[in-house]
Amino acid sequence: MASRAVMRSTTRDFKKYYNPEVGNELRMDTNTNVLGSNPAAERYLREQTEDINGYPNTYSDGLRDALASLYGLERENFVAGSGSDEMLDVAFKTFTEWGDGCVVPVPSYTLYEYFVSMNGGTPVESELSEDFQLDVDDIIRSGAKVAVVPSPNNPTGNSFRQKDLEDLLCRFDGILVIDEAYGEYADSTMISKVDEFDNLIVLRTFSKAYAMAGLRIGYAAASLDLADMMNSVKIPYSLNKISEGAAIAAVNDQGFIEESRRMVAKERPKLASDLRRLGFEPYPSDANFILAVSPIDHSVLVPELKKRGVMIRDFGGKRRTENCVRMTVGTSDLNKIMTDGISEVLEAYR
Amino acid sequence: MASRAVMRSTTRDFKKYYNPEVGNELRMDTNTNVLGSNPAAERYLREQTEDINGYPNTYSDGLRDALASLYGLERENFVAGSGSDEMLDVAFKTFTEWGDGCVVPVPSYTLYEYFVSMNGGTPVESELSEDFQLDVDDIIRSGAKVAVVPSPNNPTGNSFRQKDLEDLLCRFDGILVIDEAYGEYADSTMISKVDEFDNLIVLRTFSKAYAMAGLRIGYAAASLDLADMMNSVKIPYSLNKISEGAAIAAVNDQGFIEESRRMVAKERPKLASDLRRLGFEPYPSDANFILAVSPIDHSVLVPELKKRGVMIRDFGGKRRTENCVRMTVGTSDLNKIMTDGISEVLEAYR
Repeated sequence: MASRAVMRSTTRDFKKYYNPEVGNELRMDTNTNVLGSNPAAERYLREQTEDINGYPNTYSDGLRDALASLYGLERENFVAGSGSDEMLDVAFKTFTEWGDGCVVPVPSYTLYEYFVSMNGGTPVESELSEDFQLDVDDIIRSGAKVAVVPSPNNPTGNSFRQKDLEDLLCRFDGILVIDEAYGEYADSTMISKVDEFDNLIVLRTFSKAYAMAGLRIGYAAASLDLADMMNSVKIPYSLNKISEGAAIAAVNDQGFIEESRRMVAKERPKLASDLRRLGFEPYPSDANFILAVSPIDHSVLVPELKKRGVMIRDFGGKRRTENCVRMTVGTSDLNKIMTDGISEVLEAYR
Repeated sequence: MASRAVMRSTTRDFKKYYNPEVGNELRMDTNTNVLGSNPAAERYLREQTEDINGYPNTYSDGLRDALASLYGLERENFVAGSGSDEMLDVAFKTFTEWGDGCVVPVPSYTLYEYFVSMNGGTPVESELSEDFQLDVDDIIRSGAKVAVVPSPNNPTGNSFRQKDLEDLLCRFDGILVIDEAYGEYADSTMISKVDEFDNLIVLRTFSKAYAMAGLRIGYAAASLDLADMMNSVKIPYSLNKISEGAAIAAVNDQGFIEESRRMVAKERPKLASDLRRLGFEPYPSDANFILAVSPIDHSVLVPELKKRGVMIRDFGGKRRTENCVRMTVGTSDLNKIMTDGISEVLEAYR
């Protein structure tokens, strides 16, 4: 029997990822798009006749061209791959030495520390302020090689202040990776700044607003120099042909993204207000989800709600999000199903 | 402007990958399946109705179950992902520390050294014998943490001797990764030995015999312990839903693989004999390609043949394969097109 001593020292305590038993529950725990699958991507899938026997284009030029046109940048500003998870992995592989410190905010997306450790780096936690904003000076003082900050932040939902991000880019000696996984729902983006800052990498995904999580597509935008470095390190043709074709179709149909954005902008304040009425304390959000302090114990609420057919994500056992749960902003109908279920649990357990 | 000094020290000289200008040439340079796209996978693609808005299964259980049934092993003997390239990457991330030596044979697949360096390791070359067989003692003496050997070897085409591989597994202190990218064409496999050797990882791909390179699917088979370690380090749900569904359909239709194997077994000796007649010196192959010494300068043959509509791969500028070219074994018709083209070039330049 092989012991874990054979593993890379920074990975020995890795556990498998969040992998819940799932039946027919309403999934309000993953922040995918509640309007359903991307229609342009579905149309592409029905009609596509790709030659699957041939390799994809080595660096996904078709998708990078579509993105260049969407953002008014150049193809060579982009790196495309199998989910923004791959982009994170590539960023650490490209820019860190063994043991290099890499800043991850707390509270934030738990997978960041895993990507740092997997690539031999040392996670350095930077505490967010009381209102979940960045401590810019703390990150600069860290002397880290890379900092990863998601904006809007996950699981808290708020965007970081644009002036803080620009201040950080000016004064931080390392590379700043801004993960805009929920960027389509926010009012601002840093993608337009990639030619201005030579230490900026912005990540985006097709798993959230684009409603294509099943196809695993993500990309990075950066200066021509940084993007070239990442492309030379990333695994060639890591993005498969079908996912690339579907992504191009989806980029060229911004109507669905607009509709999704409008729906969330309309429903988010209504859901927050319903949650307040039920005794939750919701935090402000610029994304398609809300983090809220539960009025009863999180470890009762989440499983009891699941029994009633609705899954939400439990962050209640973690520091800084004590007794918090995170739920996707649904359509008016889905939110009613969710809040009705929550009401039932509260009546039974409050 | 950012200098490459900002990059991981082991990656600073990375260039972008083989990315030739391609028109309508016959591709005899990539060793994909000349019978065309996998029919079961194509049928699945036409008929599939996956919910692309939802995430894939975290560890690709559906595909791992199909593989377990194919090989008479357990689901937990397998790791699945986006191409066997991802499996290589995961193996180095899981089992190597910064600077660890990793053995790669010479001559062999050029990407191995890139995967080692990308992950902070130190490539250690182990020279193959005159007849391209392993120097088992040399690999053992290296004290390396990992050794990667492709069997059949690429670009030489021969399998390594089973007794050498087993000898190596018994006496080598590190992990032995056997890349069976062309394993479907060979007479033996090491997959049946994964429960016997706790330092063995076997890689397979859907890009060659399975005729699905465009979908990027690969897997590793290993002992339950090693597979568990790799699964805990790999990126969750890196294999997208559509590729996974197509792979399951393809695994469950072994008829196409059998037909491909029979075709290659029949055409390979005929192509070798035609090449000999034209003045080449072909090496013995257990794969769907042949490496051969060219009768004229490789740097004339390859581009001139491309002008005549056939692409083959040039290894002539590399040590140990001086003046060699590698070509896919085609159907009888395709081989005739290729050898006719070669004849024309030879007539013009010999």
